[in-house]
Amino acid sequence: MTETDRASRPGGRSARVRADVLAAVAAELTEHGYDGLSIDGVAARSGVHRTTVYRRWKTVAGLLVDLLQTDDDWAPADTGSLEGDLIALNREVYDALTEQPSVTQAVIAASFRTPEAAEALTAFWADRYRRSAAVVERAIARGEVPVRTNAHEVVVAATGPLYHQLVLLKQPLTRAAADRYARLASGM
Amino acid sequence: MTETDRASRPGGRSARVRADVLAAVAAELTEHGYDGLSIDGVAARSGVHRTTVYRRWKTVAGLLVDLLQTDDDWAPADTGSLEGDLIALNREVYDALTEQPSVTQAVIAASFRTPEAAEALTAFWADRYRRSAAVVERAIARGEVPVRTNAHEVVVAATGPLYHQLVLLKQPLTRAAADRYARLASGM
Repeated sequence: MTETDRASRPGGRSARVRADVLAAVAAELTEHGYDGLSIDGVAARSGVHRTTVYRRWKTVAGLLVDLLQTDDDWAPADTGSLEGDLIALNREVYDALTEQPSVTQAVIAASFRTPEAAEALTAFWADRYRRSAAVVERAIARGEVPVRTNAHEVVVAATGPLYHQLVLLKQPLTRAAADRYARLASGM
Repeated sequence: MTETDRASRPGGRSARVRADVLAAVAAELTEHGYDGLSIDGVAARSGVHRTTVYRRWKTVAGLLVDLLQTDDDWAPADTGSLEGDLIALNREVYDALTEQPSVTQAVIAASFRTPEAAEALTAFWADRYRRSAAVVERAIARGEVPVRTNAHEVVVAATGPLYHQLVLLKQPLTRAAADRYARLASGM
């Protein structure tokens, strides 16, 4: 990357530092896993001074959570039906939990080790599930489901089995099964 | 407890030692939480020599997993319908995850910290989900659901949302919602 490319990235120096650091976190995670992740390693790889990294992200957990949140504009797909929306949502969850290595799996593991990661992950999920409620609100507006349908409950019915099978039970799951859980939830 | 009571417990000395140690684990967990749990603390409280505890259970995780497995004869309730069986199952999961303190929650947390706890929990769950498949097999035998219904998938559809909401999302869940997830899964 040339200096011109770097300078032209939107957001200026601060955004550039963040992009460089998060790219280094992803690369270090891929090569060494969560247990091999360190602020010093990330600083060295990114070329950003370690005191800058410590000041802005504080902990390894802080780096991981920021990596999860890179897509600030995230919104659930709008396919025109509740079933279609939940299938799209479950495919995103499926991909996030099965990619190698999975940042989501790494942050979940970190959340059981440090309170900072736990708090940050809880806040991240609260935001994501709030945004995901839109798929049920749209279905209500279309008259597809009853007005009093509990949006959060429907989204958890779709996504919960994926997390349970892949994160806690640590058993394989097919993409077709992820679709079936979404379809089931759409009839709640 | 008198010496006569102790001697009359079924299973002899080894079973008595196990019962005393596991009672001490539960009590220590209640008072100090997972992070305050130690083999030395459990040994002191149980009155069993610490070398005996180290030899038989090796780690704190080993103690917790044995505590989970005290009910070796566990089988899912047989209520006569798939919906009833899944509701009964979800109520057991609900109680296990919401009791204060929850041994299950403590073992799950431990599974993200030590490989021994992770392996033991995986084996424990594999056994429990295998036994739980009986509720679907009975429903197939009754002609209640199609012959090719995937038993594991149905049980995960029922229980997965509870684990996701209470363990990962760490949000409240009502018993009525646990029943609704069971009902939904029975129509899979």
